[in-house]
Amino acid sequence: MNTSKKETVLTLRDALFVILSVFLLFAATVLFAADGDSQLMDRARTVFGPLPSSMPAPDNPITPEKVKLGKVLFWETRISVDRTVSCVKCHPIGLYAADGLKKAIGNTCKENPRNSPTILNAAAQISAHWIGNRTGVEDQAKQALVGPPSFGMPSYESVEKILRGMKGYVVMFKEAFPDDKEPVTVDNFAKAIGAFERTLMTPAPFDDFMKGNAQALTDRQKRGLKTFLNTGCITCHFSPYLGGQMYEKFGKFEPYEKYTKSEKVDEGRFTVTKNPADKFFFKVPVLRNVAETPPYFHDGSVARLSDVVTIMAKIQLARDLTPEQTGDIVAFLASLTGKIPDSVLTVPILPSED
Amino acid sequence: MNTSKKETVLTLRDALFVILSVFLLFAATVLFAADGDSQLMDRARTVFGPLPSSMPAPDNPITPEKVKLGKVLFWETRISVDRTVSCVKCHPIGLYAADGLKKAIGNTCKENPRNSPTILNAAAQISAHWIGNRTGVEDQAKQALVGPPSFGMPSYESVEKILRGMKGYVVMFKEAFPDDKEPVTVDNFAKAIGAFERTLMTPAPFDDFMKGNAQALTDRQKRGLKTFLNTGCITCHFSPYLGGQMYEKFGKFEPYEKYTKSEKVDEGRFTVTKNPADKFFFKVPVLRNVAETPPYFHDGSVARLSDVVTIMAKIQLARDLTPEQTGDIVAFLASLTGKIPDSVLTVPILPSED
Repeated sequence: MNTSKKETVLTLRDALFVILSVFLLFAATVLFAADGDSQLMDRARTVFGPLPSSMPAPDNPITPEKVKLGKVLFWETRISVDRTVSCVKCHPIGLYAADGLKKAIGNTCKENPRNSPTILNAAAQISAHWIGNRTGVEDQAKQALVGPPSFGMPSYESVEKILRGMKGYVVMFKEAFPDDKEPVTVDNFAKAIGAFERTLMTPAPFDDFMKGNAQALTDRQKRGLKTFLNTGCITCHFSPYLGGQMYEKFGKFEPYEKYTKSEKVDEGRFTVTKNPADKFFFKVPVLRNVAETPPYFHDGSVARLSDVVTIMAKIQLARDLTPEQTGDIVAFLASLTGKIPDSVLTVPILPSED
Repeated sequence: MNTSKKETVLTLRDALFVILSVFLLFAATVLFAADGDSQLMDRARTVFGPLPSSMPAPDNPITPEKVKLGKVLFWETRISVDRTVSCVKCHPIGLYAADGLKKAIGNTCKENPRNSPTILNAAAQISAHWIGNRTGVEDQAKQALVGPPSFGMPSYESVEKILRGMKGYVVMFKEAFPDDKEPVTVDNFAKAIGAFERTLMTPAPFDDFMKGNAQALTDRQKRGLKTFLNTGCITCHFSPYLGGQMYEKFGKFEPYEKYTKSEKVDEGRFTVTKNPADKFFFKVPVLRNVAETPPYFHDGSVARLSDVVTIMAKIQLARDLTPEQTGDIVAFLASLTGKIPDSVLTVPILPSED
């Protein structure tokens, strides 16, 4: 009986020991995990920073009247040479404001030189488009009007004439630019479009995570974020937009066309600057909503995001990612798919033609 | 003094008489006008009838799930051969669901044979399009997928393959057609688009007038309505849609091309039936929102609504309207510009591609 009692006591002590160990292990895991999340949040905040609610510009302050006008103009086809092109043609909102084509198609089916980038979260980049030939969203909007493969209008005056012929626009331009003697100008067109685009922010689960909600990302997405931070992706893809802040050579370690199977080689920023050091340099694209805006690269030559991640690691970082790492990063990138503001998801009624 | 008093009495009596006369005249005018409005309302109700809230079809009952799916599909470009064509391309909502072009432009810039009609209030017509080669909105939607100048897809199967490749669509088709073993088919595509289009009603000031609100139309619009009723326009433009219920020869009294300056003569319904009696017959178009959907006629050959009214009176009714009458009718037609439902004025987010 003594033996039996002793055994029982030992068993109880063992049980208590086991329970305590399990508890401590659990607590340590939770604390460690929470600490891991917290560390990851801190790093992410440092590298990326918070997404602002809009992107004001010193020379184009955002006003409700400008944004309203800009939104209407964004949908306007009647100021293109064949009356089929509006901003929304290459930036359809329901496809996250990219067009799903390899290269954008403009008036009379002319192919544009490069892939149409989303205009969501796009205004705070160093330039618009891919190679630095558009200083910003306002400049892009203005140049598009007379760009041969985009709106294709013969002159800025021809656009102004059409807009001045529609009473609805005369009223809206006056409201948006009350101090201007002649408010209906292409420069004001550009400012209105720019003001509208500067409001196109899409906060995403990733932002919730950076704000402290550890549940906003899955474990796989957190692993992907860590890999994204640790393998060098952030050398180029930093800021709240995860890109858009610099130009970089596409194909640092190997020619890009070897992997993208591009039909022709694009010399990128060199075609603007004629500086040999700029050969094959392109603006680093913003990665917000990237999962929803295939196909990829300046020429839309790659359709799948996982292929893009593999190629980027290979030719920009000279790294071979494991399929697991690639999958993790793709999962993380999906956490950048954001909510398009309701105000952007409404179709404006365009002014009458007479 | 007596004389003076008598004069005063007479003056008072005269004044009373004048006041009474003015009052009676005023009352008579009001009563007569009210009676005139009331008579006009009665006639309008008899000829046109009330706009329904939707247009159900026996073989395509409207359900919220079908409408939701139909709206997404309405915006879908990735099921066209060059990935640029969706229903909304030729029916942009912000332009009252017509495209403002003479003739619609489809894939790879192919010109369609005729002008794109609005799809607002369009589903209850005898057929879709102009010449009776589309039995209704469902048939139109289905045929458009493989129509060489519209979506241009090589086969219905190729469309189904693309739709089945997007998880978001598989879920939505299943919800919309829960009893179907294979819900993702082009026939269900057509039903979903049709259900969506059957909800596209735009009640207008004219409907308020028919409901009894005499203030809903201006005096000029009322005069225009009377002229519209009395000169014979309603021979063809009747029903709540003011058209869409019959085919009629375009140019009953004189060849239409004499006035429209059409580039080429279109034989209309004859090209479908090969019956010589159908030469130059076209479906009578719906007039709702007509003020907002230039250019006009099957070939978009006339840009101004006042010219259209003049031409129609001339060649369909052998009447020369006075400029005043034409202006009145144009004013009346503007009362048919309706309110596009908010639900239609939102852009659906399209399913992801993988």
